[in-house]
Amino acid sequence: MQLQRYQIPVQKINHIFISHLHGDHYLGLMGLLFSMHLQKRTSELHLYSARGLDEIILLHLKYSKSVLNYNLIFHSFDPTQSALLWEDEALSVETIPLIHKIPCAGFLFREKIKPRRIDKDKLQDGMMLQHIASLKSGMDIIDDKGNIIYKNEDFTLPPRPSLSYAFCSDTAYNESLIERLKGINLLYHEATFMEDEKDKAKETMHSTAADAARIARAASVTQLAIGHFSARYKDLDPLLAEAKAIFPNTSLAIEGETFELEA
Amino acid sequence: MQLQRYQIPVQKINHIFISHLHGDHYLGLMGLLFSMHLQKRTSELHLYSARGLDEIILLHLKYSKSVLNYNLIFHSFDPTQSALLWEDEALSVETIPLIHKIPCAGFLFREKIKPRRIDKDKLQDGMMLQHIASLKSGMDIIDDKGNIIYKNEDFTLPPRPSLSYAFCSDTAYNESLIERLKGINLLYHEATFMEDEKDKAKETMHSTAADAARIARAASVTQLAIGHFSARYKDLDPLLAEAKAIFPNTSLAIEGETFELEA
Repeated sequence: MQLQRYQIPVQKINHIFISHLHGDHYLGLMGLLFSMHLQKRTSELHLYSARGLDEIILLHLKYSKSVLNYNLIFHSFDPTQSALLWEDEALSVETIPLIHKIPCAGFLFREKIKPRRIDKDKLQDGMMLQHIASLKSGMDIIDDKGNIIYKNEDFTLPPRPSLSYAFCSDTAYNESLIERLKGINLLYHEATFMEDEKDKAKETMHSTAADAARIARAASVTQLAIGHFSARYKDLDPLLAEAKAIFPNTSLAIEGETFELEA
Repeated sequence: MQLQRYQIPVQKINHIFISHLHGDHYLGLMGLLFSMHLQKRTSELHLYSARGLDEIILLHLKYSKSVLNYNLIFHSFDPTQSALLWEDEALSVETIPLIHKIPCAGFLFREKIKPRRIDKDKLQDGMMLQHIASLKSGMDIIDDKGNIIYKNEDFTLPPRPSLSYAFCSDTAYNESLIERLKGINLLYHEATFMEDEKDKAKETMHSTAADAARIARAASVTQLAIGHFSARYKDLDPLLAEAKAIFPNTSLAIEGETFELEA
């Protein structure tokens, strides 16, 4: 329903990453899978989760006697180990072990190093397409005799920065995250409570807004988004203030908000 | 979410009846069960369904390592047989076998015969509480010698009518329903399609608006509410018109509407 409300093109989603099997983190999935089916999806869908999700989904399908129009590919992972879940030439997705009541992992989305950019003002007549492709990949253009015709740095600009995003929900305060999150551009970190409910946070294996900010500061991330607030907080400004006091570049991760990654 | 939107007091729900295990008919249940838990429910909750719901819910609970604060009591029934699921002194709930792609049952909610009403204008000095209780139950009041002191009909009015409601979703057109639904006050009957999609209705084992109205007319129900409309119908008025042409006292069962049962 939220995907629809925010006009996310559902059929373009090919990979879904589930952090853990608490209801608030995956109960909408079954409805989404059926919706994709009703909307005539045919391309395969990859689901990444700790063990159990496959069993649950197959049981739903069994009792509804449903055969989906598309293939579901289950990728079960061990949330206690960091692992590469997926990559292509542009992006990789790794798990981040979190500390919670049940097996739980965050996800680190990292762009790979991008090609150099052609400086269009410097393009010359006689340059061929394969010259441009080679320049983009960082090479100089050399003739038969080994002489440099086009020197890379004369024609290209450095690549755009590779951006990274980490999603960490749900987790107790966990300093071992710091090393994994070093220098990433956007960190989503849960902040279920405020510091005055520190004991409650410990007991339920959640974090406070200050905890999230401490991790962000220690990992020198560019920006922090906090979310997963307890329903007890009707006003979220105090949570934001608590985090900002420690890590100023913090925002509230409100549903429907868009975050621009900052290099 | 809809219960919340329409301010239905969730914790007063003690019995939930699931017609069949297609996603649009039960996928919200798991979230409701967890919400009841978070809202500190302690009283037991009775779930009525075909086999499978118990297995699905227990698997969700297993992987979320959840122990609910309250007891879930599963009542599995065979949807191919009509059966009494529940009764107390005021109400009974029976299943109505339906014809659908998977085992599916409707539910018939029937008030029992109500006590006679005391005619307050006729009350006399000297009447005791037990006299009034006996009069309500339909008895005359007799003295030691067998003489009638208070004749029932002099002091009471007939009971209010006992009302009945049947929920029939999802089902193909099924004339064997008529006998079961004879004279009920409100029939909810699915109307997924219109007559021009009759073939589609047959193929998917659903009904048309006209089908629903034919059942209502043949069973002489007081009023009909149609629902479960295919998403293809943006405007529901033609569905209503199609049903009304056959059974005039028809309404659209729009979420959030309240239906007053008519005697």
